[in-house]
Amino acid sequence: MGVQTSGSYTIILRMETEPNVPFIHIANAIHETGGEIVAVDNVNRSKNTTIRDITVNVSNAENEATLIKNVTKVPGIKIINFSDRTFLMHLGGKLEVHSKVPIKNRDDLSHVYTPGVARVCMALHEDPAKAYSLTIKRNTVAVVSDGTAVLGLGDIGPIAAMPVMEGKAMLFKEMAGIDSFPICLDTKDTEEIIRIVKAIAPAFGGINLEDISSPRCFEIEERLKQELDIPVFHDDQHGTAVVMLAGLINALKLVGKKLTDIKVVFSGVGAAGVACTKMLMAAGVTHIIGASRSVGIIRRGEAYSNPMFQWYAEHTNPDNIAGTLSDAMQDADVFIGLSGPGVIGVEDLKKMAKDPIVFAMANPTPEILPEIAEPYVRVMATGRSDYPNQLNNVLCFPGIFRGALDCQATTINEEMKLAAAYAIASTVEDDELNEQYIIPSVFNSRVVEAVRKKVTQAAVETGVARKIPHEFA
Amino acid sequence: MGVQTSGSYTIILRMETEPNVPFIHIANAIHETGGEIVAVDNVNRSKNTTIRDITVNVSNAENEATLIKNVTKVPGIKIINFSDRTFLMHLGGKLEVHSKVPIKNRDDLSHVYTPGVARVCMALHEDPAKAYSLTIKRNTVAVVSDGTAVLGLGDIGPIAAMPVMEGKAMLFKEMAGIDSFPICLDTKDTEEIIRIVKAIAPAFGGINLEDISSPRCFEIEERLKQELDIPVFHDDQHGTAVVMLAGLINALKLVGKKLTDIKVVFSGVGAAGVACTKMLMAAGVTHIIGASRSVGIIRRGEAYSNPMFQWYAEHTNPDNIAGTLSDAMQDADVFIGLSGPGVIGVEDLKKMAKDPIVFAMANPTPEILPEIAEPYVRVMATGRSDYPNQLNNVLCFPGIFRGALDCQATTINEEMKLAAAYAIASTVEDDELNEQYIIPSVFNSRVVEAVRKKVTQAAVETGVARKIPHEFA
Repeated sequence: MGVQTSGSYTIILRMETEPNVPFIHIANAIHETGGEIVAVDNVNRSKNTTIRDITVNVSNAENEATLIKNVTKVPGIKIINFSDRTFLMHLGGKLEVHSKVPIKNRDDLSHVYTPGVARVCMALHEDPAKAYSLTIKRNTVAVVSDGTAVLGLGDIGPIAAMPVMEGKAMLFKEMAGIDSFPICLDTKDTEEIIRIVKAIAPAFGGINLEDISSPRCFEIEERLKQELDIPVFHDDQHGTAVVMLAGLINALKLVGKKLTDIKVVFSGVGAAGVACTKMLMAAGVTHIIGASRSVGIIRRGEAYSNPMFQWYAEHTNPDNIAGTLSDAMQDADVFIGLSGPGVIGVEDLKKMAKDPIVFAMANPTPEILPEIAEPYVRVMATGRSDYPNQLNNVLCFPGIFRGALDCQATTINEEMKLAAAYAIASTVEDDELNEQYIIPSVFNSRVVEAVRKKVTQAAVETGVARKIPHEFA
Repeated sequence: MGVQTSGSYTIILRMETEPNVPFIHIANAIHETGGEIVAVDNVNRSKNTTIRDITVNVSNAENEATLIKNVTKVPGIKIINFSDRTFLMHLGGKLEVHSKVPIKNRDDLSHVYTPGVARVCMALHEDPAKAYSLTIKRNTVAVVSDGTAVLGLGDIGPIAAMPVMEGKAMLFKEMAGIDSFPICLDTKDTEEIIRIVKAIAPAFGGINLEDISSPRCFEIEERLKQELDIPVFHDDQHGTAVVMLAGLINALKLVGKKLTDIKVVFSGVGAAGVACTKMLMAAGVTHIIGASRSVGIIRRGEAYSNPMFQWYAEHTNPDNIAGTLSDAMQDADVFIGLSGPGVIGVEDLKKMAKDPIVFAMANPTPEILPEIAEPYVRVMATGRSDYPNQLNNVLCFPGIFRGALDCQATTINEEMKLAAAYAIASTVEDDELNEQYIIPSVFNSRVVEAVRKKVTQAAVETGVARKIPHEFA
């Protein structure tokens, strides 16, 4: 299986050259294969050789391989080793665990460990609710995956999933100050995963499920939500849904339509598609039609073996129309793609109602490319960072967990998710809002604070907050 | 159930006093109940009241209650609140998770998270052994407990165990730079614990089992050692055994006896007792007799329902003597107590061979108190910090895991444990060694380095190191 990723990256070539090898020979070899030299550092120069580190931007792994092959052919040079910045940033992993209190002497030790710690243990034994004040629970989230649906890479297993989960934990910390730890599970058994997460839960204030394949992800999340008293949030479903709704709220402002009036067509009725559909229904949308590549438009009266399709048939498609995705597109106000490239074309866009809104969220290649769709749509968004309007889960999960932890919420409910979507949407001011800017950047520092506040407020109002923060008291 | 702990601690009383209340009244009320004033801070002074924080050392929880009651009786003063330093140091927990790399902009994000991270995931999918270089595995240990045998407090559950496990994780970091995370399990089922630890293992370079009650701890450790390819170490067993042996090596130097010649008597044949016995046998001791409070001296020919006793009967007591602990003490060179207070008396010490060595390790109250035993023994050690020669596991676990992680060891074997014991013993120089100083302080900075080096060397020599560090190459 090859590496399927988009986007350029940086490599560092360490090479030894004989005297009198002109640098331009090396530079040409790099240039010819499309590499761009970023920096050249002389590491060591002796009478007989020069050792240099050359930092080069390449477009992909194939490009990297061609470039190295081409450079190796230059007479008088030898490549000692090469590494790229992404891999260098992963060396030794991306997380550290720190003590909040130093242990410098016996007195410190006697407070944070034996014998003093015994009194704290007994206080917790008498009142386990004190875990929120006397342990790390208050600020700690588990990032749990079984590695079965990692990015677009599929079932790559728990070890290969670690860099994503470590990255997620970094984002929790950097964006929202949340301590989070990756738990990658070497099992795919639904019941076992449920038992494990329940068993490790005491130390955590929340569980972020990640990259668990469908349909197991539904059962796992549903059961854990019922059986645990801390928030359980499958980010691939609900993070996607919250950010999609945030974008849609702003897109509808631009075109002057209301959630309650629009017709929305979904391509892709997997975990994310169903979560997005439920989110829209919670927000007031009534006219939703879903289509899958395998069965076309989902409708009542058909027998589906997939229980998700069955649910979908019972809750959407009010006019119970039949046909293909293309048939559904007639007079649609909004298209939401959570499937794969190529499922819609320009002809489908032309069938849509006035001011079409297209969220083509398939990763890494959208259902239709923005450069093709642009002449026919009013607002276009994707999951990608190299086009405007990136719908990125990073906008949601740090703030929604920050808000849930701050009030020691027992769950993350629909109201909290809706509040998060409206909060994200609100960070784009009315005078900033335009077709190219319906959703804030993931580095917009106002997002986490806005989401936190509204999520906590929603938790307090719906009675799922164990603690009422001062601002809402 | 009351809090059973020894040792003094510090409380802070915040009190409001009316004008003209002489401070000496407060000081007297504190003094009368045995409290010692450490500091007085004026927090706020107005025309009508003064608010002060008074920091006081108290001897125990009962003393604290009496003191507060007594101070409350002083006319014109009101206690606003009180807190103690141990609890203050636990507020919000004792650990944080940090990113090793900041995420300041989109370029950083593209390397540590999507899309760049996908290439790292695929590199791990193709070669999972790269987990040691590209994930946190290389430097990360899980501290796993089910909260069934926490300190001397018994089965207090996973939440109440957290402060100990957080403390342990702090010590891993502060002493040996190891990133460690507490996993407190809400299950006591042996098979389930085994399955859970196996399932979470991919992210970790080692598993430290902690405070799991006997006999389940044996089965859990044994099975995990067989079924995982990373070190699994039950600290209550092996940490205790390594430190005990370190102390004994030095004590024997003092009295001029050899491990191969001594007679050792154990009181307590639980998890730690069996581990210590096995450690001594690995170190060359042949004459060991064990006694338990329930069955007396353990010997061949008796039928024991406890499988540990059965093992003990088959492997110790070469002369197969019968009787009580007191009978076993005749001509013993060494007494090792891992039981409870009061099991031996002065009469028993008098029966021992010349230059008796007594390690009374029961916690918090030793089998016999040093002040009572001292006239009759040559070398005395306990588990307590308020007597000389504290046999403390903190001397072992940071260094032994540091050594195991540095060579990516697949296990911690007998040779590595023996090496750790000799390394700990070696940090007491010959000219420092005396009856009051057979074991280094837990704050002796040479200990971790000495243990690390010898443990890695033993791992390399016994073929359990995946990686040979330069110094041993």
